[in-house]
Amino acid sequence: MAQATGRSTYLPGYHLSNLTHHEWRTAENSAMHLVPTLEAMAGLNPGLTLLDVGAGSGTITASLAKYMPQGHITATDISEEILQRAAEYARKAGASNISFEVANVYKLPFPDSSFDVVHASQVLAHLDAPVQALKEMLRVTKPNGVVASKDGVLHTWSVHPDLPAIAKFQEVLVGTMKAAGGQCNAGAELVSWAMKAGASREQITATMSTWCYSTPEERQIWGGAMGERIKSGAMRKKASELGLATEAELDEMGKAWDEWVATEDACFGLMNGEILVKK
Amino acid sequence: MAQATGRSTYLPGYHLSNLTHHEWRTAENSAMHLVPTLEAMAGLNPGLTLLDVGAGSGTITASLAKYMPQGHITATDISEEILQRAAEYARKAGASNISFEVANVYKLPFPDSSFDVVHASQVLAHLDAPVQALKEMLRVTKPNGVVASKDGVLHTWSVHPDLPAIAKFQEVLVGTMKAAGGQCNAGAELVSWAMKAGASREQITATMSTWCYSTPEERQIWGGAMGERIKSGAMRKKASELGLATEAELDEMGKAWDEWVATEDACFGLMNGEILVKK
Repeated sequence: MAQATGRSTYLPGYHLSNLTHHEWRTAENSAMHLVPTLEAMAGLNPGLTLLDVGAGSGTITASLAKYMPQGHITATDISEEILQRAAEYARKAGASNISFEVANVYKLPFPDSSFDVVHASQVLAHLDAPVQALKEMLRVTKPNGVVASKDGVLHTWSVHPDLPAIAKFQEVLVGTMKAAGGQCNAGAELVSWAMKAGASREQITATMSTWCYSTPEERQIWGGAMGERIKSGAMRKKASELGLATEAELDEMGKAWDEWVATEDACFGLMNGEILVKK
Repeated sequence: MAQATGRSTYLPGYHLSNLTHHEWRTAENSAMHLVPTLEAMAGLNPGLTLLDVGAGSGTITASLAKYMPQGHITATDISEEILQRAAEYARKAGASNISFEVANVYKLPFPDSSFDVVHASQVLAHLDAPVQALKEMLRVTKPNGVVASKDGVLHTWSVHPDLPAIAKFQEVLVGTMKAAGGQCNAGAELVSWAMKAGASREQITATMSTWCYSTPEERQIWGGAMGERIKSGAMRKKASELGLATEAELDEMGKAWDEWVATEDACFGLMNGEILVKK
């Protein structure tokens, strides 16, 4: 792990191609480690409060809101621009119980014990001090509340057909993530991070889940987003700066994703780790 | 892929340590890609028939039987010994609607269109001609029936703590599997295999799922089974024969699994691919 600095940037950026996949995410495909608990908590306490840390374009946030219609969600992100998009998405989705606020996960602008539920999806993996962030998330959680986090394990990418330029893309992705101080094995380390942040093993429930893309529509969502990242997104610029691939190699990767999307028997899977920590 | 020979052996073997993990498997933790469809089919046709190919010690089989109490399951395996254990397990579990029969997946002793459902769990990955096996499974499936298969993707193993001897164990596992003609990327190739076996893309539903072990009990189930495989199971013998590791390295791997089981913040995940093919 790089030395922890509490850096607060989001390397993948908010290019439209990235948003296509980000905005495919819902509570149902990305937060089922939390939903049953959220439903049970909302049943006992309809006015409960949820903090969504690093909410990004807010599709999971708006989706979680359905499970707590009488409660209130505070959605934070370090980017004001993306929160404006999230607010617009929530308005269109009819989710009126969400407020939006720019905030840094390392210094959340809330008193101790403010929220019943604190949720972060694919946030800790992008931080160079994830334990510090989890401590802060636990701090603002009420006693008997829960903290939920979900993060990928990058090497679990499983691809057919096994195109060399997609394998190279994956290497570049790992390289850019490491250079930014991110955590490539995050999903498997969540239990350990939560314990380092002060939770006992008994407070933690660990699960794993997957994303799988194989129908033509799914291939377009995933392969299209990955292709655009390397054709014109922030990942291309970063890969060039770091010398991880030549321009010709980057072009090959873009073409490989187009080929993968067009391959009728293609399949892609990846695994995410998840924790639910009872405070 | 090694040249397809239609070889029919099961390398991991039936050592008790292997069985501990095999027998942890149920429909609920290992066949949820099939269960909702099975329930729907049994609702419409209570007397439906299911063929479980490579049923092994039969815990998934007995578990599936609960979802079709008026139907009948035929459980096959290439090992008569393991089927005797499966029959005993079914008897104790009170599953009386299962019959047991030694059979080779490449030459199933059943006429065309015999079964409503044909199921195989972690079978195709151990074969050197998985497409041939899928063709045979489709042959014995009735029109409007389904074929279900679930297989791992070996490189998705995600482990914390990242002990070097466990990484080496994983390399040895891949090496022994490849040497036996097995398919290390099986879970990601199932869609492709089903299409090569004659199914159209529209007939196939592809999903991924995980196994995750992190509580003390879960760590014992998984780490205990893996440790025993390398301390005294068939994998140790094979690894030595193939020259994949020295005796000292094999001993280290066994100790590493003991250490992993005893580590309070340990976590292990792996990803399986799944297909459901409508005939």
